[in-house]
Amino acid sequence: MPHTTNKQSLYTSLSPALLNLYDISSSVVVIIDVLRATSTIATALFNGAKEIIPVDSVDECIRIGKQMNAITAGERDGKVAEGLQYGNSPFEYPESFISGKTLVLTTTNGTKLLHMALVKGANEIITGAFANIDAVSEYLVKTGKPVLLACAAWKDRVNIEDTLFAGAVVEKLKDHFDINCDGSKMALGLYKEAQKDLYEFMKTNQATHFQRLTNFGLEKDIKHCLTNNTAPVLPIYQQGKLIRSNNNI
Amino acid sequence: MPHTTNKQSLYTSLSPALLNLYDISSSVVVIIDVLRATSTIATALFNGAKEIIPVDSVDECIRIGKQMNAITAGERDGKVAEGLQYGNSPFEYPESFISGKTLVLTTTNGTKLLHMALVKGANEIITGAFANIDAVSEYLVKTGKPVLLACAAWKDRVNIEDTLFAGAVVEKLKDHFDINCDGSKMALGLYKEAQKDLYEFMKTNQATHFQRLTNFGLEKDIKHCLTNNTAPVLPIYQQGKLIRSNNNI
Repeated sequence: MPHTTNKQSLYTSLSPALLNLYDISSSVVVIIDVLRATSTIATALFNGAKEIIPVDSVDECIRIGKQMNAITAGERDGKVAEGLQYGNSPFEYPESFISGKTLVLTTTNGTKLLHMALVKGANEIITGAFANIDAVSEYLVKTGKPVLLACAAWKDRVNIEDTLFAGAVVEKLKDHFDINCDGSKMALGLYKEAQKDLYEFMKTNQATHFQRLTNFGLEKDIKHCLTNNTAPVLPIYQQGKLIRSNNNI
Repeated sequence: MPHTTNKQSLYTSLSPALLNLYDISSSVVVIIDVLRATSTIATALFNGAKEIIPVDSVDECIRIGKQMNAITAGERDGKVAEGLQYGNSPFEYPESFISGKTLVLTTTNGTKLLHMALVKGANEIITGAFANIDAVSEYLVKTGKPVLLACAAWKDRVNIEDTLFAGAVVEKLKDHFDINCDGSKMALGLYKEAQKDLYEFMKTNQATHFQRLTNFGLEKDIKHCLTNNTAPVLPIYQQGKLIRSNNNI
């Protein structure tokens, strides 16, 4: 049964350690780090941030922040990283604070994965989270390129929340793409099992990052990050920066 | 919320490419290759095979087969590998054929993963499939060691059937182990979504290996390999060989 379809392919990589299994030279790669990097990126851009510069290390974050007179932000293991001004919560970036500003951001998993995709030669890189799920999904249908949904996971271990987001996107896109990928189908299956109440599913299953964040009193962040379309923008990576795309819905 | 429990840990690795994230020096590693290596291993041992020697390569399979005057078997990409006598279907190994014999087996993913776990210093290696799910689960509860459920996947890409089996084992063991691992919880979630009819779930989702095997007319194999306890033995790896353990139920 050879595949005979004119649809583009869609794959899901559940961990950065699996990224190298996929040829992404002609693909849009969607970086997914629901708790909380890509939720915060969407929120900051929606609230008027001029640009977000994702960097790998805290040192680099401080260096570029000084150089550009920008806001430095980021977390390590779920907490504000030492030496940086702000953390990784969408609630830290209301319009009154972030509008017109440049944010230099480093996170445990999301920004690292973005740089892996860049080095591996991704045709195009965008970021996705429930906060901007419709903007991302509509763009992927429109763009006509193959897609890789790339979960940031946690230090290479698969995680529930990024997989749920991949599943939610697969649910929206499954009629538009050729999905010959068990990772995508597993994500969809998990999403179907969880979709009645994503927060409750995360709580009942005591997802590892759910535990980490609730230990810091961040239930509010988790609920917000699992809510659809709170920040309907399309963050696109261009010349070292994430900016709000003109392809917005 | 530090974990305070006397239970042993249970982790699930969804792909051989993720195996190195886990310390297995004191763990029982369960090698999972439902379609079809570990189903066939359980079946051959249940039907009286003396021992099964898993080897990485077809050449090694032929060499050891000659040396031991044993049956050579294995597949590459779902078909009998060239130069070998038999394939990877449980139906090829009835008691009348296999009883008392030695089988040298090489498969695309399962035997490779077993050797990875060996090299990485696993405390103990067993193999699991729906064919022997209760024997495996009961042994894991009894043994008192930490557990890693290790999916063979397909050329490092996660697959549905091995994940479903991991989920089925997690469902049986979840009250006996400390499961602080999203991979295990994702497997359980997927299993819950699929458990009414695993074959139908594989078919509806057109799991990639389901497609490969049905192209070879192997629906019967798939159904058999998704059935519980058709071969209730515990295959354990000792000194280069898989044998039927005395710890059998």
